[in-house]
Amino acid sequence: MRIAIDAMGGDHAPSLIVKGALAAAVEWPAIQVLLVGDTAQIEEHLGSNKPSNITIIHADDVIGPDEEPVKAVRRKKNSSMVMTGQLVRDGEADAMLSAGNTGALMTTGLLVVGRMSGIERPALVTMLPTMNDIGVLALDLGANMDAKPEHLLQYAIMGSIYRNKVNGVSNPRVGLLNVGTEEMKGNELTKAAFELLKTAPINFIGNVEARDVLVHNCDVLVCDGFAGNIMLKAMEGTAGTLFKTIRDAFSSSLLTKLAAAIMQSKLRQLRKKMDYTEHGGAPLLGINGLVIKCHGSSDVKAIKSAVRQAKLAIESQLITSIAAEINRNK
Amino acid sequence: MRIAIDAMGGDHAPSLIVKGALAAAVEWPAIQVLLVGDTAQIEEHLGSNKPSNITIIHADDVIGPDEEPVKAVRRKKNSSMVMTGQLVRDGEADAMLSAGNTGALMTTGLLVVGRMSGIERPALVTMLPTMNDIGVLALDLGANMDAKPEHLLQYAIMGSIYRNKVNGVSNPRVGLLNVGTEEMKGNELTKAAFELLKTAPINFIGNVEARDVLVHNCDVLVCDGFAGNIMLKAMEGTAGTLFKTIRDAFSSSLLTKLAAAIMQSKLRQLRKKMDYTEHGGAPLLGINGLVIKCHGSSDVKAIKSAVRQAKLAIESQLITSIAAEINRNK
Repeated sequence: MRIAIDAMGGDHAPSLIVKGALAAAVEWPAIQVLLVGDTAQIEEHLGSNKPSNITIIHADDVIGPDEEPVKAVRRKKNSSMVMTGQLVRDGEADAMLSAGNTGALMTTGLLVVGRMSGIERPALVTMLPTMNDIGVLALDLGANMDAKPEHLLQYAIMGSIYRNKVNGVSNPRVGLLNVGTEEMKGNELTKAAFELLKTAPINFIGNVEARDVLVHNCDVLVCDGFAGNIMLKAMEGTAGTLFKTIRDAFSSSLLTKLAAAIMQSKLRQLRKKMDYTEHGGAPLLGINGLVIKCHGSSDVKAIKSAVRQAKLAIESQLITSIAAEINRNK
Repeated sequence: MRIAIDAMGGDHAPSLIVKGALAAAVEWPAIQVLLVGDTAQIEEHLGSNKPSNITIIHADDVIGPDEEPVKAVRRKKNSSMVMTGQLVRDGEADAMLSAGNTGALMTTGLLVVGRMSGIERPALVTMLPTMNDIGVLALDLGANMDAKPEHLLQYAIMGSIYRNKVNGVSNPRVGLLNVGTEEMKGNELTKAAFELLKTAPINFIGNVEARDVLVHNCDVLVCDGFAGNIMLKAMEGTAGTLFKTIRDAFSSSLLTKLAAAIMQSKLRQLRKKMDYTEHGGAPLLGINGLVIKCHGSSDVKAIKSAVRQAKLAIESQLITSIAAEINRNK
């Protein structure tokens, strides 16, 4: 099993990306880790520890976080990200990871690795946190801003297979993000998608509301990329602002600082639970290979956990399963 | 100034609605309060206190919270909600309030009071809480599920006038809800709306993200009813779940209960700050008269505060100002 990692993308690249790759290579000796990026820098961060299952593949160039995605991918053929994608396209790697520019990675998926036959639009998938720690797999969270009902149907099928194969959830409950739970709620898109999902080969449980996601109202949440991204950021912003305000309240007097000392570990736990960047990488599904977006702020643990996620997906033959099911439902 | 109140709509109707109306009538003797509903029940809750500026208008029927809106409004001509709308339509009241069935109230606005000339789609407006207590006026939050760019333009104009006239904010900053702040972000709808907003007679500050609403990133937030409703419920659900989880953490041991005692008032304050039902009624703008939706759980304070909101809107000639500006921009 060969996993290619873009060593140069992310806030802490290459240092923590390389160290994360190293930790994964040591933990799972059966994985061949292909580290793509500037050889000198990668070697520096690997130090004298390079295990035999790490191979460095030199890339001259890097795509920056603020570059215009399509232009950057088209022009920078020798960038670490594009070269990582080429390894998957050419069958030299079974999966790729990158913590770099999200738009550029989606473009690399589409233009370099290539869209899966039968898929109209790939979807960006994220595990949303839930209070019971099981999580809700949500897609699309921003790959496709103008979804059609047929796209939502494909998201539902891809998400179900992912949830089953990679997370081991049997017969995952699929919900459609909507403004109410009744069948006739929503806009033209959700109403038409509802009809398609009713007869799809999935366990469709109907419409679900954004307010119930944290209490694990479904296993797979289907939404268009615009509404899904708005939901994700509203949840993230609300949690972040509340935690900050509570922290300020705790530090306002000696007495509240005492209360803070008592509650510290519990609040830290809760904050971690709510941090969706803790819940693994975000796969881009509908691509002719496994492409996983790691959060920009990824550290050693995040990279290692994304490698584990890729390993599970490869072992369970995720991509060929999705391709077979999509073709059956064409 | 005459304000008509549907005495029979809401979780605590007629009791707290009547008591709220009574409190408002006592506080502002210049307002004529028209209480619409079952005379016997209204009289019972008024007791012997009926001030001379309260008039009871008898209505035989009530629209229930789960009734199908259009059917209910069409069939129940003698319901308290429809009759309250008729008072506005017939010029016998300057505004109407109801805490009843939201869909039915929107239908009453459209079919009974009537759409404002030049407006394509009315919008439901809500004040979202912000940490600095100033609030963000957001529209549309669910009146119109399939918005066109021209609708968003009209929301922006109506929201700006409301924010200025009713809340006294001069030159309110108008933001467009989007998945990123850069101009080219978003779906076809937001991209087209961005172009219209750039040249509109408002203080347009560009795209804003859902994660920054709580820190008061704009004064008026323009969005389509579907995405806006998703955002509202994601914020509401995240805050609700976090408060519940924190409350559970506080009650887990004697020591944490001590911390809870110290932090109680601050957390209660924060919870109240986050409760958007505390922030007045939700006007339905784009109607030929002032229609305000009060939260279903409205109590005496909420009704009184909605009467105050209606009073400010009437005094500032909100509806005629909106009509004039919409006609200027046709």
